Amino acid sequence: MPKNVVLAQSGGPTCVINNSLRGLIDYCRAHPQTFGAIYAGNFGIEGVLKEELIDLGATSPEEIALLRTSPAAGGIGTCRYKLKKGQDEDYNRVVDVFKAHNVGYFFYIGGNDSQDTAHKVSLLAHERGLDLVAVGVPKTIDNDLGDSKFELLDHSPGYGSAARYIASYVRQANEENAGSCPADPVLVIQAMGRKIGFIPAAARLADPERKTPLQIYLAESGVTLERLGENVVRSLESAGRCLVVVSEGFDVGEIGAARDNFGHVQFSASQTTVCQTVVNYLNTLKFPVPGKARGQVPGTDQRNAIAYASAVDLDEAYAVGRYAAELARAGRSGSMATILRDRTTSAYCVRYDAVPLERVANSERTFPDEWISADRIDVTDAYLEYARPLIGDDWVSVPLVDGLPRFARIVKKFAPKKLGEYVPQTYREKK
Amino acid sequence: MPKNVVLAQSGGPTCVINNSLRGLIDYCRAHPQTFGAIYAGNFGIEGVLKEELIDLGATSPEEIALLRTSPAAGGIGTCRYKLKKGQDEDYNRVVDVFKAHNVGYFFYIGGNDSQDTAHKVSLLAHERGLDLVAVGVPKTIDNDLGDSKFELLDHSPGYGSAARYIASYVRQANEENAGSCPADPVLVIQAMGRKIGFIPAAARLADPERKTPLQIYLAESGVTLERLGENVVRSLESAGRCLVVVSEGFDVGEIGAARDNFGHVQFSASQTTVCQTVVNYLNTLKFPVPGKARGQVPGTDQRNAIAYASAVDLDEAYAVGRYAAELARAGRSGSMATILRDRTTSAYCVRYDAVPLERVANSERTFPDEWISADRIDVTDAYLEYARPLIGDDWVSVPLVDGLPRFARIVKKFAPKKLGEYVPQTYREKK
Repeated sequence: MPKNVVLAQSGGPTCVINNSLRGLIDYCRAHPQTFGAIYAGNFGIEGVLKEELIDLGATSPEEIALLRTSPAAGGIGTCRYKLKKGQDEDYNRVVDVFKAHNVGYFFYIGGNDSQDTAHKVSLLAHERGLDLVAVGVPKTIDNDLGDSKFELLDHSPGYGSAARYIASYVRQANEENAGSCPADPVLVIQAMGRKIGFIPAAARLADPERKTPLQIYLAESGVTLERLGENVVRSLESAGRCLVVVSEGFDVGEIGAARDNFGHVQFSASQTTVCQTVVNYLNTLKFPVPGKARGQVPGTDQRNAIAYASAVDLDEAYAVGRYAAELARAGRSGSMATILRDRTTSAYCVRYDAVPLERVANSERTFPDEWISADRIDVTDAYLEYARPLIGDDWVSVPLVDGLPRFARIVKKFAPKKLGEYVPQTYREKK
Repeated sequence: MPKNVVLAQSGGPTCVINNSLRGLIDYCRAHPQTFGAIYAGNFGIEGVLKEELIDLGATSPEEIALLRTSPAAGGIGTCRYKLKKGQDEDYNRVVDVFKAHNVGYFFYIGGNDSQDTAHKVSLLAHERGLDLVAVGVPKTIDNDLGDSKFELLDHSPGYGSAARYIASYVRQANEENAGSCPADPVLVIQAMGRKIGFIPAAARLADPERKTPLQIYLAESGVTLERLGENVVRSLESAGRCLVVVSEGFDVGEIGAARDNFGHVQFSASQTTVCQTVVNYLNTLKFPVPGKARGQVPGTDQRNAIAYASAVDLDEAYAVGRYAAELARAGRSGSMATILRDRTTSAYCVRYDAVPLERVANSERTFPDEWISADRIDVTDAYLEYARPLIGDDWVSVPLVDGLPRFARIVKKFAPKKLGEYVPQTYREKK
C-alpha cells in the first residue's frame, strides 16, 4: 500500500530550489506503488504544523515542469520557523499531522537546521509507532552546509547560481566602472553570506586573470575597515579606480562605531547596511582622483535572478531531489541525499550518494583559509578550480511570456483538515 | 576628400549605448569617401579636450561587432564633464583639436546637455571657419530626453532595457516575497531616475493584471513617507505582504528629517539611500503581520545587466546610430537622430528622423501626470501600452566565454598628439 508524501522547504530560497522539488515530485509520481498523494507544507514546516498541506495533485504536469526555471519559493513557500531541541509540542504535532494524513515519507529541503529537524522528526515518529521515512535534500546559496573537507557534500544546490550571479554582476559592473572614471571611481558591492565567504569569493570568477582592480572582503578576511580604506586608496593611485566586493558579514569594527562620537551617522546593523558603512567611510578619505565611492546592494536578487542560474546547478538540484526520493523508496530514513565530486580526475564529475542526517546536522563548514590569498583581499586559484565548474557554461533557456519569465503556478488546494487548530509553539511563547 | 570623425559618449551609460556606437562605426566604415579615420574621445568630451583620441581603426571588426552586447561604456568611456555656456576656452579647445586632426564630423551620444553641447560646438566651428557637421545621438535610461508629447523623440535608446530590467527584477522579487512570508513581508526596491519616473513605472510591466501587492512611488507621485507607510500597512492587512518600488528621487520629506530630533539615525541624501530611509521608517511602524521590511538597491546594474537588454532597444540603438551617420553624410549638421513611433496604428512601428539639436536642448520631458493612477501609487494602462513594446519579447543571445559574457575590447591606441597640453577649464577653476 502506498503511503503519502510530505515535502517542505526551509530558510532562504535559491534559484534552483524548485528544481529539487520537481525532482522529488517526478520520481514519486513515477512510483505510485510506493508513493501516494504528494503534499507540500504551505510555507514549509509551519504549514505542516498548521495542517496546511498543499495537494500537488491539483497542479498540472506542465506547471510542475515549469518549476525547473522558477526561482525562489513562490510556489509552495518557505519559512524561517525552526523546530529546535525542546520544542516537543511542535514535534509531536508534526507526527500527529503525519499520522492523520497517512504520511510515510517526509522530505525536507534546507540547510543544517533542516537536516537536524528531519532527523529528529524521524526518531520521534518511530518512538510513536509511525513508520516514517525522513530524507533531507541539501539547499543553500551560502554553501555552508556539510563539512570543511567537502566529504559530506561537495557543494550545495543553489551555490553555483549565486556564484554565477556575483561573477556576472562584477563582470558587468567592471564595464561601467572602467568606462565611467573619474566620476565614480569606487563601486562597493555587498554580497550575501553573512558568516561564510563563498558568495563574495565568486567575484573572482569575473576576472580569473586578475586584470581588474577588484578587492574581495570576506567576513573571514580579518581585514579592518581602516585597512580596506588604505587598500582602496592604493588602488586609486595605481589604477584610478576600484571595485570592492564586501560580504554582508564583514566586520566594520571600531571605525564604523567610533564615528558616532563625532555626531555623524550611527551605523547599526539594522539601520545601515555594511555597504553603506563602507561607502560612507571611504568618502571621508582623501582620494587621489576626483569622484566618490558609491555602493549597491543586490540583496535577494542574488538568489532569485533566473537569468543567471547555472545550468549545472539546475540539473544537479533536480538530480539530488530525485535521488532523495530514490533513497526514500529504498527505506533509507535518516539520510540526506548528497552531491560528491570525483577528485581522482580533473574533469568535473559528480555522483549522488547518501550521508546520515545526524552527521550533516552536527558538522559545520567554514571557508578554507588556504583559499584566501596572503593579502586577505582575494581568493586563490585553488578556489577557482573548485568553483569554476559550478557556474556552468551556457545561459539557461527560460520560458518567456510578454517578454518576462513565466514561472510555475502551484495550485494551493489544501488537503482536507483532520485535526484541530494548532498554533506553533514559538508563536504561543511570544505572547 | 574624406574628413575624419570624432565620436564621444556622455553621462551615465546604458545597456545599449555601445550599439549606437557600433551603428555609427559601421555606417562610417561603409562610406570611406565621406568618412576618414574614426576617433573616439577617451572618456567622452574630456578625451577630446585632452586630445586623447582613440583610433578605432586599431580595433578589429569582430570586436566592433561585439559592441552589440557590451553594456556600459567600458570601451571608449564616458564622462560627466559638461561643456556649459561660458566655458569658451573649452569650446575653443574642442575646435582646435578638431582642426588639428582634420575632423569634419562630430557625433555626440548623450542626453539633453550633450545635444546642447553638440549644437554649440557646431556653431563655434562655423564661426571659426571649420566646416564641421555635428550630429547628436539620443541616449538615457531615464527617458527624460525630448518633450512631454513625444513628438521630438518617442523614447530614448537605453530606456527599454532599463524598463525590462526593473520589470524582470520585480517579477522575480515577487516570487521570493510571495514564498517567504511572513519572515520578510515587505521588500523595498530603489529604482533609478532621480527626477523622472519612467524606470520605477516599468515595475508595473511585471504584473499588468495587478494581482501582486505592488506599490510604485515615482518622484512625481507627491505621496508623503507617512502615506507610504499607511499604504504598506494596509497591504499587509489585506495581502500579508508588499512590494514597494521607490524612485531614488522620492521625497522622504519631513518624517525622515524629523527623526533626527529624537536622536535616531540622520538621513541625508549623501549618506543614506532613499531605500534605507524608507525601510527604517517602515520598521518603526506596527505591522499587522510578523517580520520586517527589507530593502535593496540594484544601482548601476539597472544600466549594465546585459541579460535583461531589450532586443528592440538594442536594434533601435544600432539603427539610430547608423541614421545619425547618414544624416552627417547628408550634411545635416545641427540635428539629432531620433526615433518616432507611428501613432496611426496599434502595431509597434518606428521610423528614424532628424530633429534640430536646438529644439531638443531646449525641451524638457516630464512623466505624463495622466499616466499616474488616481491613488498615486500605480501607473495606468496607457503607460503600459507605451512601454510594453519597448522591452521586446526574447532574451538577447550574448556571447559567453567560460560561462560569462565576453564584452568587446577596444584597443586604446591614441592618435598622435598635435597640440600642447590642456587642462579642462573646470579643473583649473576648481584649483
